[in-house]
Amino acid sequence: MTHDHSAPDIAAERARREQDLLERVLRSFDDCADPRLKELMRALVRHLHAFLREVRLSEEEWRKGVEFLTRVGHITDDVRQEFILLSDVLGASMQMITMNNPAHGDATEATVLGPFFVDGAPRIELGGDVSGGAPGEPCWVEGTVRDTAGAAVPGARVEVWEADADGFYDVQYDDDRTMGRAHLFTGPDGEYRFWANTPTPYPIPHDGPVGALLAAVGRSPMRASHLHFLVKVDGYRTLVTHIFVRGDDLLESDTVFGVRDSLVKDFESRPADTPTPDGRAINGLWSKARFEIVLAPV
Amino acid sequence: MTHDHSAPDIAAERARREQDLLERVLRSFDDCADPRLKELMRALVRHLHAFLREVRLSEEEWRKGVEFLTRVGHITDDVRQEFILLSDVLGASMQMITMNNPAHGDATEATVLGPFFVDGAPRIELGGDVSGGAPGEPCWVEGTVRDTAGAAVPGARVEVWEADADGFYDVQYDDDRTMGRAHLFTGPDGEYRFWANTPTPYPIPHDGPVGALLAAVGRSPMRASHLHFLVKVDGYRTLVTHIFVRGDDLLESDTVFGVRDSLVKDFESRPADTPTPDGRAINGLWSKARFEIVLAPV
Repeated sequence: MTHDHSAPDIAAERARREQDLLERVLRSFDDCADPRLKELMRALVRHLHAFLREVRLSEEEWRKGVEFLTRVGHITDDVRQEFILLSDVLGASMQMITMNNPAHGDATEATVLGPFFVDGAPRIELGGDVSGGAPGEPCWVEGTVRDTAGAAVPGARVEVWEADADGFYDVQYDDDRTMGRAHLFTGPDGEYRFWANTPTPYPIPHDGPVGALLAAVGRSPMRASHLHFLVKVDGYRTLVTHIFVRGDDLLESDTVFGVRDSLVKDFESRPADTPTPDGRAINGLWSKARFEIVLAPV
Repeated sequence: MTHDHSAPDIAAERARREQDLLERVLRSFDDCADPRLKELMRALVRHLHAFLREVRLSEEEWRKGVEFLTRVGHITDDVRQEFILLSDVLGASMQMITMNNPAHGDATEATVLGPFFVDGAPRIELGGDVSGGAPGEPCWVEGTVRDTAGAAVPGARVEVWEADADGFYDVQYDDDRTMGRAHLFTGPDGEYRFWANTPTPYPIPHDGPVGALLAAVGRSPMRASHLHFLVKVDGYRTLVTHIFVRGDDLLESDTVFGVRDSLVKDFESRPADTPTPDGRAINGLWSKARFEIVLAPV
């Protein structure tokens, strides 16, 4: 039998060299003293090499990838985190939220925290106003906080924040304003209610490399209209979520994949002269939404 | 049949939510006009999510990952490329080299280019000196360049570069020196020969986040001793490779996985008074290595 370098020989030799290399890299972590770090690094290497081998990445493509990550690194500073934005638009952030908040009975689904949560937002009373004077259409939000057995949860801390009608959060302005964010506590029957602004859509920051990537792949930088909630009380899993506006065109294309069907709510529009729930006089349209919150046990 | 939220129900619902999310992210690239970019992004997302789901990444681990990448981005500048270093120590660079230089007959294997190649290195004649006065033990290197049918390849450009005995390349000094790098051309029978320095081991830059990662996983930052080659001539695939020193303790643990068995050569040590191949007088030990180079067709 003669030996020549026929095509199957070459393919087999190629696969052998690639596999040998992968195994050598995996063995390099044999002496890692931290078992979780070892597991993470070995899994990262396996999936990274599987990606490279599947797409047969060229050296030119690899170079472009290095340049992209360099730009992401260079635009990132104390107030802008482009790596989180990248994780968001690849769905990695939402996948992590999904994994770390597994379904439990009819507990309310979680979604991304986003980069605009700030500790220390002002406290308001039941029926108070979250907007703090931010421009927008007034919106009455009410509901109850219950556990998965249906029992009311009084004294739960309900924190709320949102962008203004121009698409910006207070912290995106240079003037230290605090608007569109507040916290309150549920009453004896688990009930809560407050005024906010009807949520409006806005783009994620898209003047950097992540924005350029979205443009290159034909994706919009827009997020669906939403109101953030963070609900926290002893004995229950902390809930980080949003409610979305039914009928919003962007529900199917939210660029960070934060939308869950169960989180889409009716924001009912009310004419200017309709009496408000608490008798507040409103000069124009307002809306009303209801959000029943169910907390999973710890 | 009663319905309750038993463990299998929860596991199934969890898997369904994770898979739904992945598919939503994949669909977001449906409108990408560039088919290769679409393929790359979809594959990246599949492998990234497979990694996250396999290791069940926690939010704290994700945050540490974001912080690590941020540090890699911030230390990267015009003269230091920490993302390439990261690619190197994860074996990604070498996997790419392996894929893009498939086995072809007995063609010489390729390895990583490394960050210290510089265009425009000086030309020397056959038998000239690559070291340019860099400190180290003299080393005579000779061989021939042939094609896979065994025919000599005259006029091939052979470029060589290496670290000095202190473990640094010329470009790592601040004084614009050019040392330890040169190019020459093969003679009529494909032969080449030159003086260089016997290669010595050195660490990759390890005072940044990649060095910290290596330390955390118990890996050394050292590279096995090597001499870089870049061989280029019309009609053949350009060869980027190294030769390594047989007997070097670091051959099994080269931190960028550049070593190939076929690239490990005998560097024969010669006593101070041994006549040199070209009659050069040497005051001390010197060594001699032979490297037969076989080029694949384009």
